[in-house]
Amino acid sequence: MLIIGENINATNKTIAEAIINRNSELLQNLAIAQVEAGADFIDVNAGIGHGSPEQQIEDMEWLVETVQSATQKPLSIDSDVPAVVEAGLRKHRGDKVIINSINAETDRLKTIGELAVEYNAWVIALAMGSEGIPDNSERRLIACETIIAYLTNLGMTPEQIYFDPLVLPVSVNSRQGMVTLETIRQIKSRYPEARTAMGLSNVSFGLPGRKLINRGFLLMAAYAGLDAAILDPLDKKAMSLVKVADMLLSNDPFCKSYNRAYRKGQIIE
Amino acid sequence: MLIIGENINATNKTIAEAIINRNSELLQNLAIAQVEAGADFIDVNAGIGHGSPEQQIEDMEWLVETVQSATQKPLSIDSDVPAVVEAGLRKHRGDKVIINSINAETDRLKTIGELAVEYNAWVIALAMGSEGIPDNSERRLIACETIIAYLTNLGMTPEQIYFDPLVLPVSVNSRQGMVTLETIRQIKSRYPEARTAMGLSNVSFGLPGRKLINRGFLLMAAYAGLDAAILDPLDKKAMSLVKVADMLLSNDPFCKSYNRAYRKGQIIE
Repeated sequence: MLIIGENINATNKTIAEAIINRNSELLQNLAIAQVEAGADFIDVNAGIGHGSPEQQIEDMEWLVETVQSATQKPLSIDSDVPAVVEAGLRKHRGDKVIINSINAETDRLKTIGELAVEYNAWVIALAMGSEGIPDNSERRLIACETIIAYLTNLGMTPEQIYFDPLVLPVSVNSRQGMVTLETIRQIKSRYPEARTAMGLSNVSFGLPGRKLINRGFLLMAAYAGLDAAILDPLDKKAMSLVKVADMLLSNDPFCKSYNRAYRKGQIIE
Repeated sequence: MLIIGENINATNKTIAEAIINRNSELLQNLAIAQVEAGADFIDVNAGIGHGSPEQQIEDMEWLVETVQSATQKPLSIDSDVPAVVEAGLRKHRGDKVIINSINAETDRLKTIGELAVEYNAWVIALAMGSEGIPDNSERRLIACETIIAYLTNLGMTPEQIYFDPLVLPVSVNSRQGMVTLETIRQIKSRYPEARTAMGLSNVSFGLPGRKLINRGFLLMAAYAGLDAAILDPLDKKAMSLVKVADMLLSNDPFCKSYNRAYRKGQIIE
């Protein structure tokens, strides 16, 4: 499973302050720690929730440069604002990069899709349109069809698209875990070349013991066909289960990666 | 998920000695502990590996009486020897009981199947014949077809049959986790009224960190359609994940059972 480290996100107050104060050391250390823990991509979200468009662009440029001066791993440029996404892509070095995220809204498909083509980026594509997260898989799949039709028409390949099936809390509606898992299965069945990516934590919203629930859901989602997880790679128990999932799903020949992680003390029971 | 507590098994030396010495207190305490931890059935295996046929029958009779005098929960009568199974069934009180196990061999289908009909028992049916565990799901499913055809012809209903898809170690062949999961899915698809049951620990044979692997496999198997797990209910982390699985698979309306378990301190992250 591909791991997108989620920790550098300005919705977290410590991160927002580090961006405002240009505390590069804190952010670089956090990038390095995520890479050492097994992250394949480092998500960067500089959206501190205020500031002029120029300031937002400057923040993203600074953040991309700062993180890339600490690690060779590629980034996931995380913003809702096309101009900020473009600023991040422009600064980004290396041939792999993710845009996080796009959805089925035509405006976003056009602006972000054209950027993805121009920069040869992968995109995380939320299975929803302007109406918010549908509570059923049928409507999420309609959004996926809209997205893949539009983006492949622009010249993207299905391999560049990481569909996010989205998840709503089971505390609100107990069917929602199954809706997400079914959405993953259907995406993989309809678009075998496309990929899937998801953040897990929303599933456990409103419940106690959230990390355990998120980890349980990660294993089910892995079996349903999840290709990439957006998570905290510093959560050693979650990362241990990622190794277990890869091994059980026959993605770890001779259990080599699992055994190596165990010898390094990275497998936490 | 239905939990069959596996702890009273004479292949464990402490249990074998307790049976030989008629140490009812140890066995009764172990039965009570399993029930308190959430077991729905208590498996009883009295096979100490020697002793005359008469001795084996006497051991099973004593074990069933001993355990049933400590708990109201039904038992799973665990033996390869039809006369021992019959002795256990004869002593068993209550209207629910499991026979563990049967497979596709004609002799066993006939003798154990007739006992299951006579005592209205559920059976755990191993997806294999006399040749040992097939390394692919196709041949396991052929065994299932043989079993369900024979047993329903004897008068059993599909609901009485718990197919065990069987699992071989991923350390020997990395495809084996997937073979088992695919077998579960196929069984549920072909025989929607039949059930599935499995012990998990074989999947991790030969690897370090076995309990973590077993727990990861449990979640995937739950999503694939596993109805019952044969496990150690005193493993609190495994039981916590059983609650998580039930909740994520929409088998726990309003997360009531999970929240209750959390309040009782039974959910271990």
